Amino acid sequence: MVVGKSYPRVDAVDKITGRAKYTDDLCDKGALIAKICHSTIGNGIVKSIDTTEAEKIPGVVKVITCFDVKEKHYFPTAGHPWSTDPNHQDVADRLVLTERVRFYGDDIAAVIAEDEVAAARAVRALKVEYEEYPVVLDPIEAMKDGAPQLHEDYPNNILKHTSIRKGNYEEVSKEEGLTKVEGWYETPTVQHSHIENFICYCYEEAGRLNIVASTQIPHIVRRIVGQALGMDWGKIRIIKPYIGGGFGNKQDALYEPLCAYLCTQVGGRLVKLDVSREETFACNRVRHAMKLHIISYLRPDGTYAARKLEIFSNQGAYASHGHSIAAKAMGAFPQLYPCDNVECDAYTVFTNRTVAGAMRGYGMPQATFAYESHTDDVCMAMGLDPIEFRRKNLMPVGYVDGFSKNENYYDSFNQCMDKGIEYMDYYKKREEYKNQTGDIRKGIGMSVFWYNTAVWPISLESSSCRMVLNQDGSVQVQVGETEIGQGADTAYAQMTAEVLGIPFEMVHTISTQDTDLTPFGTGAYASRQTYTAGFSIRQTGLLLKERILKYAHELTRMPEYNLDIIDGNIVRTTDGRSLMTLGELATEALYSLENSKHLTAESTYQTKSNAYSFGCCFAEVEVDVPFCRAEVKKIINVHDCGKLINPALAEAQVHGGMSMGIGFGLTETMLYDPKTAKVLNNNLLDYKLSTFMDHPHLEAQFIENPEPTSAFGTKALGEPPACPVASAIRSAILNATGVAVNQIPMRPAVLFERFKEEGLI
Amino acid sequence: MVVGKSYPRVDAVDKITGRAKYTDDLCDKGALIAKICHSTIGNGIVKSIDTTEAEKIPGVVKVITCFDVKEKHYFPTAGHPWSTDPNHQDVADRLVLTERVRFYGDDIAAVIAEDEVAAARAVRALKVEYEEYPVVLDPIEAMKDGAPQLHEDYPNNILKHTSIRKGNYEEVSKEEGLTKVEGWYETPTVQHSHIENFICYCYEEAGRLNIVASTQIPHIVRRIVGQALGMDWGKIRIIKPYIGGGFGNKQDALYEPLCAYLCTQVGGRLVKLDVSREETFACNRVRHAMKLHIISYLRPDGTYAARKLEIFSNQGAYASHGHSIAAKAMGAFPQLYPCDNVECDAYTVFTNRTVAGAMRGYGMPQATFAYESHTDDVCMAMGLDPIEFRRKNLMPVGYVDGFSKNENYYDSFNQCMDKGIEYMDYYKKREEYKNQTGDIRKGIGMSVFWYNTAVWPISLESSSCRMVLNQDGSVQVQVGETEIGQGADTAYAQMTAEVLGIPFEMVHTISTQDTDLTPFGTGAYASRQTYTAGFSIRQTGLLLKERILKYAHELTRMPEYNLDIIDGNIVRTTDGRSLMTLGELATEALYSLENSKHLTAESTYQTKSNAYSFGCCFAEVEVDVPFCRAEVKKIINVHDCGKLINPALAEAQVHGGMSMGIGFGLTETMLYDPKTAKVLNNNLLDYKLSTFMDHPHLEAQFIENPEPTSAFGTKALGEPPACPVASAIRSAILNATGVAVNQIPMRPAVLFERFKEEGLI
Repeated sequence: MVVGKSYPRVDAVDKITGRAKYTDDLCDKGALIAKICHSTIGNGIVKSIDTTEAEKIPGVVKVITCFDVKEKHYFPTAGHPWSTDPNHQDVADRLVLTERVRFYGDDIAAVIAEDEVAAARAVRALKVEYEEYPVVLDPIEAMKDGAPQLHEDYPNNILKHTSIRKGNYEEVSKEEGLTKVEGWYETPTVQHSHIENFICYCYEEAGRLNIVASTQIPHIVRRIVGQALGMDWGKIRIIKPYIGGGFGNKQDALYEPLCAYLCTQVGGRLVKLDVSREETFACNRVRHAMKLHIISYLRPDGTYAARKLEIFSNQGAYASHGHSIAAKAMGAFPQLYPCDNVECDAYTVFTNRTVAGAMRGYGMPQATFAYESHTDDVCMAMGLDPIEFRRKNLMPVGYVDGFSKNENYYDSFNQCMDKGIEYMDYYKKREEYKNQTGDIRKGIGMSVFWYNTAVWPISLESSSCRMVLNQDGSVQVQVGETEIGQGADTAYAQMTAEVLGIPFEMVHTISTQDTDLTPFGTGAYASRQTYTAGFSIRQTGLLLKERILKYAHELTRMPEYNLDIIDGNIVRTTDGRSLMTLGELATEALYSLENSKHLTAESTYQTKSNAYSFGCCFAEVEVDVPFCRAEVKKIINVHDCGKLINPALAEAQVHGGMSMGIGFGLTETMLYDPKTAKVLNNNLLDYKLSTFMDHPHLEAQFIENPEPTSAFGTKALGEPPACPVASAIRSAILNATGVAVNQIPMRPAVLFERFKEEGLI
Repeated sequence: MVVGKSYPRVDAVDKITGRAKYTDDLCDKGALIAKICHSTIGNGIVKSIDTTEAEKIPGVVKVITCFDVKEKHYFPTAGHPWSTDPNHQDVADRLVLTERVRFYGDDIAAVIAEDEVAAARAVRALKVEYEEYPVVLDPIEAMKDGAPQLHEDYPNNILKHTSIRKGNYEEVSKEEGLTKVEGWYETPTVQHSHIENFICYCYEEAGRLNIVASTQIPHIVRRIVGQALGMDWGKIRIIKPYIGGGFGNKQDALYEPLCAYLCTQVGGRLVKLDVSREETFACNRVRHAMKLHIISYLRPDGTYAARKLEIFSNQGAYASHGHSIAAKAMGAFPQLYPCDNVECDAYTVFTNRTVAGAMRGYGMPQATFAYESHTDDVCMAMGLDPIEFRRKNLMPVGYVDGFSKNENYYDSFNQCMDKGIEYMDYYKKREEYKNQTGDIRKGIGMSVFWYNTAVWPISLESSSCRMVLNQDGSVQVQVGETEIGQGADTAYAQMTAEVLGIPFEMVHTISTQDTDLTPFGTGAYASRQTYTAGFSIRQTGLLLKERILKYAHELTRMPEYNLDIIDGNIVRTTDGRSLMTLGELATEALYSLENSKHLTAESTYQTKSNAYSFGCCFAEVEVDVPFCRAEVKKIINVHDCGKLINPALAEAQVHGGMSMGIGFGLTETMLYDPKTAKVLNNNLLDYKLSTFMDHPHLEAQFIENPEPTSAFGTKALGEPPACPVASAIRSAILNATGVAVNQIPMRPAVLFERFKEEGLI
């Protein structure tokens, strides 16, 4: 068994030694440098741009303004799989450069220069005249009549509104004897803050555009650049080297279209576009800030009679991933705590904030914060034990979702919670932390979550895989599902070794995706990697194995059904004798004068299943009441993501998500100037990113119920760890102080207001 | 029809604009620089190397001498396909660094430094003590008892001796009434003189060695580096970008093994090894100098009664391609002019000259010079017309070679000669140039040749191909047969377009070979490209087409046998209606929510056929008798290489070969110091390379008899053009002056001797 063991990462040594090559490492040092001129208003139009001074600066090659872009190809940016069906196409509302400014930092011009200094000087030398409009930053404000309108085709700035209706909420909620619990929950705009800022470069070769980019989704970016430039998609080639994190920000086409366009404006010369951290905050993507309104009616027996949910999701200035995030958040509501009478509405609304896109959890960290905070509020109101309430009301074993066909096969929620309870000594501490009164108070809390695996049936799930056998019996494996720091390449190597029957060390995962050569796969997102690529790896591995054993039959005269590959050897299963090594077979196959064959295999597997992933977080906090400060002292995430491919990497994955969850809950938020919509904390000094220094030990534990729909028994783990953390912390603060905080991050400013309201200070 | 048209080269724009990337363009500028310390004796042993001073030079990272190489893995360097059968393995007589010096320039140490200057200074600072032995430069001298011995296992320096015996030469040659014609013919050591010197760089990544190299044979170099370092071959990855010519020199592993070894000595850091022109001459490969001895006995009717051939081939210091070149030259002898009684012997002999390897024509330019010069001598002796003699005695239509099974399907020789006669107005001029006496004399001459296509059945001929369909219906094609400047990528694009039924512009040939990703194919040599890769391209194209039409059936409900791809459209053949474009089909196939499929195909075709390629050269010269100088005034090559894939590229191919042939005939030769074996003219100033300035218009014409064994009716054209030129010039000089010159190049020094002997001066 190669799967299930904690092999070291295949890229560990190269990354530790600095030898691993990222986009900037690969770019020729003679590249032209592009810099973007961003708008300094949050809403309005560009009336003119005077380029005279900029063009005089030595080293400036070309200045291109929004007025120079003659062919206007509107394009979408979301890294969704796309389909020929217009219902599966994203809103095309972007241009490479725009006269109509919709956020502070919008892209209105660009400079191409021989070096970075000249480019930066030239951007500063551009003289821009604007007509400025008022800005709106809040979705509920933006929906009001008379609010500034961002996009003509979307009255009241509503990008989309969808609903769920089940049973009869209105009627049932009027029944007698019900307890009504209502809350508004608010989550912030946060940024992914991956280590490597977005960077790409583009050059023309053989009449085609070659783009090397720090992206999660090379095959999707190929399509988007084609759309943005009005070019045949086969004329675009995207190459993705190692990338320094993405977390969903790079599940958008960020500046690949602009960089490609600029390249075409200098005759196909090599142009590099490297964005700063400040641009990353203001001009990339952020997590959708949401306001969620929940009303629950409970029967005296502690069950839900009727429930209502409203979500107002802050899209920022352009559609990007758009409504799919709020829709996902809403869709989780009736599944987490099934109830017969439900009414849900989700609104995704344009504002002049930074464009919101995909971010780890894709709406679920926001939803989980609201839903699980509300669960605690319900328990508080009803005087119920939060764990017992959950055991009783959570999605039961055997539950099947009508749309995704996901089934809850195991008692995962209870199994996970039991682990958390035990690790934290939950009940003992909960008792202990009752009725504290001092300045420093401790509290313990928890939260559960569920998460889908990949995107079927909402969208396409397809992975193609190719395997190539070398002379020594080692194998290259190629898939389109990208390594983005999460360790996917290592998991692929393990799965390939497993299915082929060869040692782990004999698999070489091709980490670089190249749309010309890499089998089609849409990239890294939606926690799809091991689940989706797992299918195509197993299928392709079996295909290659069949070809190998067929060749082994020719060499050994043994029937194929009596042959197997075990630990890199061709083994006769009837007596267990090793007849030859796979290397000997491969060498013979390549060089045979009788029957020379390069043994390779390639196939597509289209995933038409999905899987629930489950888990919970337990957190213990210490609250400094006078200083309005909460600190996490102990924390555990427990996940049932099916069988683990690599326990050590799974643990690392959970650590990262927990860290992100802590930041989401306690410190991270992007602040906007209410007049100009300018991001005020567009850097890692002012933006309080949760780091190693802010955490206690992060405990990760697992329940390994094998997922029956999966190629290797595995399911989503990439995003889930970030989902339940903020609500668990909120739960612990509630336990410590009795104060329910409905707005994250629960930073001192927020706690101060709430503690004042509640009379603690 | 896409095949048969003169499309512009797919790499034309990139190469003209300087945008095409070669090895040095791709290498990171921070690479460590390796320089080799070459021996300054031609034969002997290294007694010691003092590295003290070298190591003191700032920037020097490491000095490695032959004494530091602890594991001695002897390896072969020839770019032959190899086989598990030891009879198909080349002589393994090289080490990455050697104590036993066998030629002036042998590799005895290397320096790795931060920059080129430090590396060069350090090499000069090495203090080497030798024990010097006498050198031998001539194969016949080297075979004598008492000559210096180069390799222990090869007494009298004979690497190999093979023979052909047919009928009874000894007996028949004694028959009465026969005319005996005897001659010794001598050809020089020449160098390929490709534009780009050999260069490579190596770095470790994911525990494997990645080597980017200017090579013709990436998949073969992978094997050789593995052998040289004693590593599993799958741990070696070779990447071949565009290369600036090879002509056979880069059909050897040159310094890839050494560079890879050096990389391992600095912890896998990036090491670049770029050789100078001087090193290229002295330390790469050269064409085998040969001495050929022919005796023919002719019957009074002008037919051959018995013939004898001896070849002494100068191997230089190491085996490289070894005896296969002399063997090929010998094998041509009985086929060109079939005769019932033949005795042939070929000896390949080690000397202290530069190592001889593959070079365009692979023994046939030498052989053709001797055989066709001898044919002229025979005609002279018998008073026969050279053309009529050839018409009567050349390989007849229907001739089948017993070994290769090659068949002469058409009357190609006569067709080619007729074109040459017409273009040159041969008979009129031949009459006109009789009996000249002045200082300036004109002459006209000709020569024929035949050539094999690829290497089956001597060795493996196998090509694998992969095709990948893009969203817009364009296709990537990958083969292991490399573009080395000859235009192969363009031919592949045409063949792919042809077999798939799509426009030429819709094919993207992947020019870079990467042994991890590129289907196995052994590279560019033996004029195999269009013939060998043609098979796998057609086979793979048909496979892809089948998959496309199967998918078209699903989309259109039409039976596959009524569907075809015509000009990039899915066409219903029954009424000629275009049902959809291939791009529409490809897009639907990738993004279908029903049946998503990445349509690709990959397959290996093992070639088990070969084909005769034919042609002739006619040359007109002007000889300045007092100045002993011959100048080509008019020249034509006529080739039957089957159907032309791209007439313009075929013409360019012929031009290059003719240029090389003119240099071989008139100016090029490497000169060796007889005492030290040092190359005296190791640069392009002293070595008289034939260039554009030395040529008249080079006329290329074709007879397009479709080769019946071939996928696209094509056969060898890469090497043939170089074969008949020197003998045609020699024939013309003979016509002009009556002097038979048996030694090339026929430079003034040689003509002076012969003209003196014949009393012209």
